[in-house]
Amino acid sequence: MDFESLRKLMMEARTVRRFDESRPVGENELEKLVELTRYCPSGRNAQPLRYRLVSSPEEREMVFPLLKWAGYFADWDGPEPGERPAAYLVQCLDSTYGSNCLCDDGLQLEAIRLGMQTLGLEGCIIKAFNAPELSKALRLDERFSPRYVIAIGYPVEKVVIEEIKDDDFKYFRTPDGIHHVPKRSLEELILK
Amino acid sequence: MDFESLRKLMMEARTVRRFDESRPVGENELEKLVELTRYCPSGRNAQPLRYRLVSSPEEREMVFPLLKWAGYFADWDGPEPGERPAAYLVQCLDSTYGSNCLCDDGLQLEAIRLGMQTLGLEGCIIKAFNAPELSKALRLDERFSPRYVIAIGYPVEKVVIEEIKDDDFKYFRTPDGIHHVPKRSLEELILK
Repeated sequence: MDFESLRKLMMEARTVRRFDESRPVGENELEKLVELTRYCPSGRNAQPLRYRLVSSPEEREMVFPLLKWAGYFADWDGPEPGERPAAYLVQCLDSTYGSNCLCDDGLQLEAIRLGMQTLGLEGCIIKAFNAPELSKALRLDERFSPRYVIAIGYPVEKVVIEEIKDDDFKYFRTPDGIHHVPKRSLEELILK
Repeated sequence: MDFESLRKLMMEARTVRRFDESRPVGENELEKLVELTRYCPSGRNAQPLRYRLVSSPEEREMVFPLLKWAGYFADWDGPEPGERPAAYLVQCLDSTYGSNCLCDDGLQLEAIRLGMQTLGLEGCIIKAFNAPELSKALRLDERFSPRYVIAIGYPVEKVVIEEIKDDDFKYFRTPDGIHHVPKRSLEELILK
């Protein structure tokens, strides 16, 4: 694969919070996404992360109210029925291998995100959730602590990248429903 | 891009610790890699990570002795002269935006790794380094704390993936110089 194809994939893989809930995402697709995490590097090569697949309507209904959506949108409690995620992956740390996974979490989440994009899926990485209730709802062994939830589905939201102005990095929505994400310039990212 | 092309890229993008030091990696390539991090998601969209590019022989000589290599190889102090990295990216956190970047670090490191692979480069994400000395050597403003060092170059080492046996996740080298990395099976990664 050439650099430009990869760059294009990364530009297209946007965080999305509104989905076509009527289009299911099956266990087969979720397993394909988890398989990609096998090829990520891992601190000490311990590979302590595991995934709980959530795709049944019953489990989705339990998971959804435990999540917080889009911190900057004070007047938005998350997607309406019909636009909710069609599936979730819950990334869990197996405490057998320590209480810390260094950057394994992000390495794997990026692999999953890019995989989603190749399958026509989009999603949202969520850190704000009720972890004890989530563990209970999914009957996770206490050895596994949920670290991130990835909400997944077919997108019904348009997201565009903007240049940041005056360090105002908050994402915003315009009345046409388009979600805008200001990104820093390459120049700003490089330390001289 | 289709799923299989992405999967292949991820399988090929291996951690490598021995390089052809005579083949330079220029600032242009390093900038291309940093550009990819613009398209990663970011907690609160704050985008607090920055990169210091290191490619001159003088700076590489300062950086190399501050790094620890391959913790499992007690009798190996890292690559010999001639097989050392041709460049580094030093990922730094801008403390203006807080002391924590959630999983932004890993998300961006995975983007960089995959980018490297498309350019024929390989590398190693290093967490064990002398951070105060590194900051001093690169004259980083105290606002920027180094979080990870990515060693980069054209590989002269062969790396192969193995299936894990008996939870023995330590990587190892065989007398033929091949580096073997045991990876967990998909079944083991999925919580039932």
